[in-house]
Amino acid sequence: MKLMTLHWKGATAAARADGSRAVVLEPFADVGDLLRAGSVSAVAGIEGPVVDLDAVDFAPVILAPSKIVCVGLNYRAHILEMKRELPEYPVLFAKFSDTLAAAGEEIALPAESPEIDWEGELAVVIGSTVRRASAEQAEDAIAGYTIANDVSMRDWQFRTREWLQGKMWERSTPLGPVLATPEEIPSDARMTTTVDGLQKQVGDIHDLVHGPVDLVQYVSTITTLRPGDVILTGTPGGVGHAREPREYLASGSVVEVTIDGIGTLRNRFVTEEP
Amino acid sequence: MKLMTLHWKGATAAARADGSRAVVLEPFADVGDLLRAGSVSAVAGIEGPVVDLDAVDFAPVILAPSKIVCVGLNYRAHILEMKRELPEYPVLFAKFSDTLAAAGEEIALPAESPEIDWEGELAVVIGSTVRRASAEQAEDAIAGYTIANDVSMRDWQFRTREWLQGKMWERSTPLGPVLATPEEIPSDARMTTTVDGLQKQVGDIHDLVHGPVDLVQYVSTITTLRPGDVILTGTPGGVGHAREPREYLASGSVVEVTIDGIGTLRNRFVTEEP
Repeated sequence: MKLMTLHWKGATAAARADGSRAVVLEPFADVGDLLRAGSVSAVAGIEGPVVDLDAVDFAPVILAPSKIVCVGLNYRAHILEMKRELPEYPVLFAKFSDTLAAAGEEIALPAESPEIDWEGELAVVIGSTVRRASAEQAEDAIAGYTIANDVSMRDWQFRTREWLQGKMWERSTPLGPVLATPEEIPSDARMTTTVDGLQKQVGDIHDLVHGPVDLVQYVSTITTLRPGDVILTGTPGGVGHAREPREYLASGSVVEVTIDGIGTLRNRFVTEEP
Repeated sequence: MKLMTLHWKGATAAARADGSRAVVLEPFADVGDLLRAGSVSAVAGIEGPVVDLDAVDFAPVILAPSKIVCVGLNYRAHILEMKRELPEYPVLFAKFSDTLAAAGEEIALPAESPEIDWEGELAVVIGSTVRRASAEQAEDAIAGYTIANDVSMRDWQFRTREWLQGKMWERSTPLGPVLATPEEIPSDARMTTTVDGLQKQVGDIHDLVHGPVDLVQYVSTITTLRPGDVILTGTPGGVGHAREPREYLASGSVVEVTIDGIGTLRNRFVTEEP
């Protein structure tokens, strides 16, 4: 099953993909609301107002996670090709709800940063409340997966010894278009990131050093994970900042992140008018 | 004026200190709710149910900030005594709402970390919505100040290159006891941190490299600050991890952080039963 959050009658609502249609699940303001109600399986068959999928005006899949935890270097092949050692522990940093944007949303390139970069990522969405989860509890706590573009203002990211200030710009991280429940993801699922149609990143989403279950266990050791919380699992090689010469997003750039079984997260970037 | 959040009739409510009493402001579930309603000045004189201040069962001053932004090294005297250069930019990291605890709350020392440390801090509470604030707008956006103990699991903090995982443990960061509006803070206000009655940290809160107004401006360049958001301004010298030999909190340790004009944030720490 694939779930989404869309703009609907001046507010937002959750919806379920059904072929080429989205069935609006009006009682739920977003997929987070639906997860908190524990209603994922209950909405599999129900009917509601219908919107053509091509006409959907997306909102971020989850509007207000209680926490967004992100992982740094995590793709095995990329770490080994950089001749680094595989990290024993995941490198964690945070984002805020205000950092999220929607699939299809035009994303501002703020005038304060000339070095804005892409990072295609698999995102885990939590479906139940867990603390100090066992592997089995962690797996059960995963409601599904979505796609993130962990857009990074590299100059701000490297101003100080902590990455956060390059990772928390207003509405800079699109999340979507849909949450795909785990059975939708093929065992050989790959992620690709293109910029203006040119492939920049490709990764096997099963090549993570710290996979989704490990990450849920690790984070839940530290703090409670709740329905609607989101874990971004890290990006493979091919970001602009690591290229020779370096590449950054420009006004008009279109970034598409595609993961098999989920779909494509597409955003156009436009210089923000002061 | 001093405002607090307390446990009240099975839920929580905001309250106003009035001499030795707390006047419960029942329409507001916490001080964050009161700030979002823009009602700080409106509650200066109103009456309500009264609780003896000594009998108040505090909750975190703000229950669910949309963002908690924390600052690393920021006390001028401490940086200079360590013979480091004053940082050009503030070092920022995050916490989550689930990280907050209350004044007086017994705080768990999780079995997973043997190196749990104190960090007394002045915290700025935002009262209005700002983005890319001027200095004047930033000053106007500060509703007041409270006290935080940025309790840090040092082994986890230094496991990887990002501090977050040592800073986000469940209910580890007490925030309170009260929000004091700016006119309550004397111009020579000092902060002291004691552990079991022994003074460990002392700082002049006006010795910050990046002061409250600067921090509001800086963070608001990156993202919108909203009523109830919290900025922790960093800690002065004297943390346990920098002592020779190193000192950490033990079961039964009592930490008191006092800032002139605000009050004392007192918490007892107890080893968590698995």
